[in-house]
Amino acid sequence: MFESKNTQRTPISDLGEFGLINHLTTATKIKHDKTALGIGDDAALIDMGDHYQAISTDMLVEGVHFDLSYMPLKHLGYKSVVVNLSDIYAMNGVAEHITVSLAVSNRFPVEALEDIYEGIHLACERYNVDLVGGDTTSSRSGLVLSITAVGRVEKDKAAKRAGAGDNDLIVVSGDLGGAYMGLQILEREKQVYLDNPEMQPELSGHEYILERQLKPEARKDIVELLQALEVVPTSMIDISDGLSSELLHVADASKVQVNVYENKIPIDPSIYTICEEFNLNTTTVALNGGEDYELLFTIPIADHDKIKANPNLTVIGYVKEGTGANLITRDEKVIALKAQGFNHME
Amino acid sequence: MFESKNTQRTPISDLGEFGLINHLTTATKIKHDKTALGIGDDAALIDMGDHYQAISTDMLVEGVHFDLSYMPLKHLGYKSVVVNLSDIYAMNGVAEHITVSLAVSNRFPVEALEDIYEGIHLACERYNVDLVGGDTTSSRSGLVLSITAVGRVEKDKAAKRAGAGDNDLIVVSGDLGGAYMGLQILEREKQVYLDNPEMQPELSGHEYILERQLKPEARKDIVELLQALEVVPTSMIDISDGLSSELLHVADASKVQVNVYENKIPIDPSIYTICEEFNLNTTTVALNGGEDYELLFTIPIADHDKIKANPNLTVIGYVKEGTGANLITRDEKVIALKAQGFNHME
Repeated sequence: MFESKNTQRTPISDLGEFGLINHLTTATKIKHDKTALGIGDDAALIDMGDHYQAISTDMLVEGVHFDLSYMPLKHLGYKSVVVNLSDIYAMNGVAEHITVSLAVSNRFPVEALEDIYEGIHLACERYNVDLVGGDTTSSRSGLVLSITAVGRVEKDKAAKRAGAGDNDLIVVSGDLGGAYMGLQILEREKQVYLDNPEMQPELSGHEYILERQLKPEARKDIVELLQALEVVPTSMIDISDGLSSELLHVADASKVQVNVYENKIPIDPSIYTICEEFNLNTTTVALNGGEDYELLFTIPIADHDKIKANPNLTVIGYVKEGTGANLITRDEKVIALKAQGFNHME
Repeated sequence: MFESKNTQRTPISDLGEFGLINHLTTATKIKHDKTALGIGDDAALIDMGDHYQAISTDMLVEGVHFDLSYMPLKHLGYKSVVVNLSDIYAMNGVAEHITVSLAVSNRFPVEALEDIYEGIHLACERYNVDLVGGDTTSSRSGLVLSITAVGRVEKDKAAKRAGAGDNDLIVVSGDLGGAYMGLQILEREKQVYLDNPEMQPELSGHEYILERQLKPEARKDIVELLQALEVVPTSMIDISDGLSSELLHVADASKVQVNVYENKIPIDPSIYTICEEFNLNTTTVALNGGEDYELLFTIPIADHDKIKANPNLTVIGYVKEGTGANLITRDEKVIALKAQGFNHME
């Protein structure tokens, strides 16, 4: 009815998710002095005087981020809160409040929404955050969840993506690749079910990786641990899109080179078996599989003694001057890493 | 693939938007002392010590809240920011930061998103807010925008829905019904266009109401005016769903009865002509048409002198003990108002 004056048509896929956000937000002007950190980190930081407030937001879309044929609604509610809180913890902060917006089509009964909210409330309980607002609206098609989390970050403890320095150690919490392999199992069993609805899904024995995919936890405990150990990361990011992608973000933002050892990347033993079954390389899975929501951070080498005994933390490499991210393989080859993780814009 | 244990299926429409939110959030527990006000007002209030922080969020869904056949994308970006800021002003606060999440299908080229962001940036400029974060993802079907606004509210000036007291005056800013009649014009011209794509839409002469619909403004100026006049509203709400609906919210939250005079409701002269053309009653349109984003508030009768000369403000009625909302008609009949405004859950 109204013609747009803008007649060029560049496909979104030409830019990719990160390219697109950069492109759209280059014109963004910061007008308030109190905006300490804007777009481009896990969360924005607002200067509240004696502390920062961290703000982060995420949108989860049915058919893109989740598949309701195997994602129970309660888990979906739980996970959508957790992935947002993870961004606050990635600033070395404490999440305190969330808002939840929900668009749902009429095919969902009230009871389905009750299930989603049960998961949301459970996550709020576990992570000690208050649900303070939201919006509920209808949708013409699928389910869309949008959550905003806010939290408190002490000024002298804020960990951005920028800040990693020469000789720092690169540390990761937990283990990697589980969420991705959980997804592979679920996709396989979905296919079996679609081919023959009489078949029951074969999920037993895969509890760990299924939970990593369906009900991940955010590493609030690691933020508390670092506090107790008196370690302040020089940089930090959460692993939502895959280790490679996050390493590159840290290298770019910190203007350094990051180097990680293949044989140091923490991988749960069960992943090896299942990777073999799927004929996948465990290192590739750990590097590029997303949604583990572990924390990746750098610390001064002087802090090594404080963390080295902790089973939750693994030193996987080191920072040096330069650019980019490298993998040092088991046979000591150096391979430049590329971001091949999850891209929800493709 | 997985059976839900919850086998009841209550249609969402049984509850309606407000009923649904109430139903889903009754289990919400507030754990933090600093959560001064949770779900159920225009914005939540967080106690930051010397002031409150207001947080509000809204989700706009294509085909539900906007129709891209007549909503230019730049206007859509502008409007989606404005409707969120309006919620912060409705707390008598100053909006400072927003985050924007966007889900888009592949049918949108990058240039379409540039148009949306141009509108977002323009609104940020005009209202002096910083865009500090967001998320961009693909969608299987339409366009979904989710915006969260945060702002600052002085503790002694916070205006909630609750707080209206016996004998307070009811005041409204600007005029009502314009956005709804703008929508009627657009819907009519869309139909003409669909019937015959050769026809040009007949929009001239309707600039005011079209702008009310396509490019509404939030009443930041009224918050500043009240500040200058040294008037602190005893309650306040923004008119997004229609005057009737908002009056009932204030009456419910404040546990009072609100009474408004039909002949006092401010209506732009152009609305009378266009209502006649559409065979609609102007009072009904002003009461139930949504999206005007004016502010509705109550003040102590002692403050009447401070506001009475102002052309932006109209006293439309008074508060007394009791419950519910009444319209006092031109012939002095008293009619109980019902919420018949926009319901995005139907």
